[in-house]
Amino acid sequence: MKTMEAAELTEKISNCLKEGNIEGVKEVLLSSHATEIATIFHSLDPADRPKLLSSLDTETASKIILELEKGQRQEILSGLDPEYIANIVNEMDSDDAADLISELPEDEARVVLAKMPPEVVKDVVTLLRYPKDSAGGIMQAELVQVTNDSTVRDTINWIRLIADEVEDFYEIYVTDITDKLLGMVSLKKLVLANPLIQVGDIMEQVPVKVTPYVDQEEVANIFKKYDVVSMPVVDDEGRLLGRITADDVIDVITEEASEDIYRFAGVQEYIHPIYTPILTKVRLRIPWILLTLFGELLIAVVIVHTFKPTLERIAILAAFMPAIMATGGNVGLQTTTIVVRGLGMGTINIAQLFQLIFSEIKEGFFLGVICGVVAAIIGGVISMNEPEFIKLAFAIFVSMISAITATSFIGAAAPLVLYKLKFDPAAASGPFLTMFNDIFGSVVYLFIAMLIF
Amino acid sequence: MKTMEAAELTEKISNCLKEGNIEGVKEVLLSSHATEIATIFHSLDPADRPKLLSSLDTETASKIILELEKGQRQEILSGLDPEYIANIVNEMDSDDAADLISELPEDEARVVLAKMPPEVVKDVVTLLRYPKDSAGGIMQAELVQVTNDSTVRDTINWIRLIADEVEDFYEIYVTDITDKLLGMVSLKKLVLANPLIQVGDIMEQVPVKVTPYVDQEEVANIFKKYDVVSMPVVDDEGRLLGRITADDVIDVITEEASEDIYRFAGVQEYIHPIYTPILTKVRLRIPWILLTLFGELLIAVVIVHTFKPTLERIAILAAFMPAIMATGGNVGLQTTTIVVRGLGMGTINIAQLFQLIFSEIKEGFFLGVICGVVAAIIGGVISMNEPEFIKLAFAIFVSMISAITATSFIGAAAPLVLYKLKFDPAAASGPFLTMFNDIFGSVVYLFIAMLIF
Repeated sequence: MKTMEAAELTEKISNCLKEGNIEGVKEVLLSSHATEIATIFHSLDPADRPKLLSSLDTETASKIILELEKGQRQEILSGLDPEYIANIVNEMDSDDAADLISELPEDEARVVLAKMPPEVVKDVVTLLRYPKDSAGGIMQAELVQVTNDSTVRDTINWIRLIADEVEDFYEIYVTDITDKLLGMVSLKKLVLANPLIQVGDIMEQVPVKVTPYVDQEEVANIFKKYDVVSMPVVDDEGRLLGRITADDVIDVITEEASEDIYRFAGVQEYIHPIYTPILTKVRLRIPWILLTLFGELLIAVVIVHTFKPTLERIAILAAFMPAIMATGGNVGLQTTTIVVRGLGMGTINIAQLFQLIFSEIKEGFFLGVICGVVAAIIGGVISMNEPEFIKLAFAIFVSMISAITATSFIGAAAPLVLYKLKFDPAAASGPFLTMFNDIFGSVVYLFIAMLIF
Repeated sequence: MKTMEAAELTEKISNCLKEGNIEGVKEVLLSSHATEIATIFHSLDPADRPKLLSSLDTETASKIILELEKGQRQEILSGLDPEYIANIVNEMDSDDAADLISELPEDEARVVLAKMPPEVVKDVVTLLRYPKDSAGGIMQAELVQVTNDSTVRDTINWIRLIADEVEDFYEIYVTDITDKLLGMVSLKKLVLANPLIQVGDIMEQVPVKVTPYVDQEEVANIFKKYDVVSMPVVDDEGRLLGRITADDVIDVITEEASEDIYRFAGVQEYIHPIYTPILTKVRLRIPWILLTLFGELLIAVVIVHTFKPTLERIAILAAFMPAIMATGGNVGLQTTTIVVRGLGMGTINIAQLFQLIFSEIKEGFFLGVICGVVAAIIGGVISMNEPEFIKLAFAIFVSMISAITATSFIGAAAPLVLYKLKFDPAAASGPFLTMFNDIFGSVVYLFIAMLIF
């Protein structure tokens, strides 16, 4: 449905733009949500995009800019006047504004900031201080804050004053005069309260809060655990700095999940299969591919130098290499996935490092025995016409167990060690694991075969 | 920090339970949040768990039950009296209650429902009608609804009446007397409004709504696009049925991302590496592993029956099989990941099916040529002492291009076709792809080699 509409709208707009009918463009766009407009934008001829944007009011333009993918956004921004960018940024929440400014080249960012109202600049610059993927990086400065001696009526009057600036909020934060967070009052409670009572008397405890340097993945886990839709950010002294809302967390979770998935697959970042130019796509994909290729060619070197005589004598050995490598690879991938996802979701505790690794090795051995028995029997049957098929089956059995146990060990240990060293555990997965496993699996198999025959 | 605390608390509680000191247990638990208690629960001796639960009030117990993993929850519930379960379920929002009841054996569910207040049962039974992973399955019936002719004062009085039942809400839905949704009033607006005005006069349009059979992944995408924290669910006639809140959507996104990731890795569902019994773990992991193993043993059959003479003559051919299989596998995995994730996030449009597949084939060919050249050169150098190393390099070159182009095609086409047929596109990834790719890669390589030599 939605895509059909978008396609229709795109055509209408293209036609209007061709005819120079800016009023027509506006008419079509005014009936659409910023998200739909961003979709239309996507499918427009790049040359038409600045025209479209400049035909819109700054509020709508700012929403569209935020909906675009990063690459497209940067392309558009580079063609716009800093003054116009400043107007657009003014319309954004402070967290989005900070993100957008951090994407600009430094000198341009400075020009844009110079053209913005000083009180907004203050908020944005504060946010720019924190890493982009920390609680401070995803919080916004816009919130409703009152001191504990304010009455409910004072609070409502204050809300009336700042209603335009703070668009969506669900609770009022109560602080002392030094900004120290004391509690909160939900809007529901405020609606029901006696206007003359002090908010300090009806406030509740904040269920959970964070400090600004907490990682955004940890923030997402807190939202999941506590089922909140917003959470305050405080400094080490407990002073209120900002708040994080559920819609930001939804973006974080999506982003982190995508990152994990891409890393598993050896893709460096999101690539749109149609809109990304082919050379960019190749550049983003080729590093891991070549790395794997080099790793696998190492196997070729080892085989040529060490196992060639064995293979010449028992050519059929080659027939079972794929089975050993692939099965080991699968088990290793399962193990890493379970460990990486567990670390990401906070269900695995790093204190149990050794218990975890040991448990995976044990399980790997178990799986190895099952696969070893199956593969040895089938392998024996397949090669029954060979004179030494019993020895072959035995080599398959032993190397299957070794390969699967080893990849289980590496599959669990590599992400845990990376995590402990504060690297991203997902880096241990995908191509790296395939490579390790293939090298280990084929060499062990041929080595065992060489010993047996 | 948090895990340290949990470990300490667990020890304290274990000691109290050993001494039969229930008051001590309560004292420790009263100072902790339900989430922490669930963590403690996790690390307790299974025999102590029912004791702990029964020492708590039903509200806390209901929160803990919801925080547990499904397997653990079912274990606990099976040991509890239906009347106690009914009390616990009564404390939950209708969506959580429906989820929990759907996890119970049918006869037990009926007993529990019979012990619950009829008005709650009505809501729960309505929710049970919708698939668990649809908008209707994740919505809750608790919301604040008033007719358009109510004044602001009426609305506030109504909120006062139902404040206990509807815990968190951020807007009031405005309907006509047939429950048809007309608009909404944010709590912020309600706080600021004249008490005598009718809500119909201050209501805004609902930015977005869904019907109950929309898939939960689509619901999550709508939340992401529109940056809302709650959304109404209406039937085909526009009558208000319930609402979905951001915290439910956060759970959906996490669940869907996990599902995608597990499917990539050939794991059927979340497995906790330490708490899941080893036989369960093996049972959940072995199907894909054995499937891959059988697929790979097919390669062995083909090699033994068709390519043995070629391999006997040129044993060194085996040395390059891993490189061709692994590189093709990597490229295919990248392609599927990009396509599956794009479909999941709604950035790929199925109407562009052929354009997409063609674009991936083109890119695969491009990557294939790069890898083919690199592998042929290195392969040639490695095997320079062989009499026919030029032919070998040529075989590597041609089969690298064929394998990578073919896996790019399958990697893009398989998930798209599954999606079009309304199956889960992620099922095309991981083990299935590895298998296809290994079989295709090795057979093409040996076939080309057989032709050349």
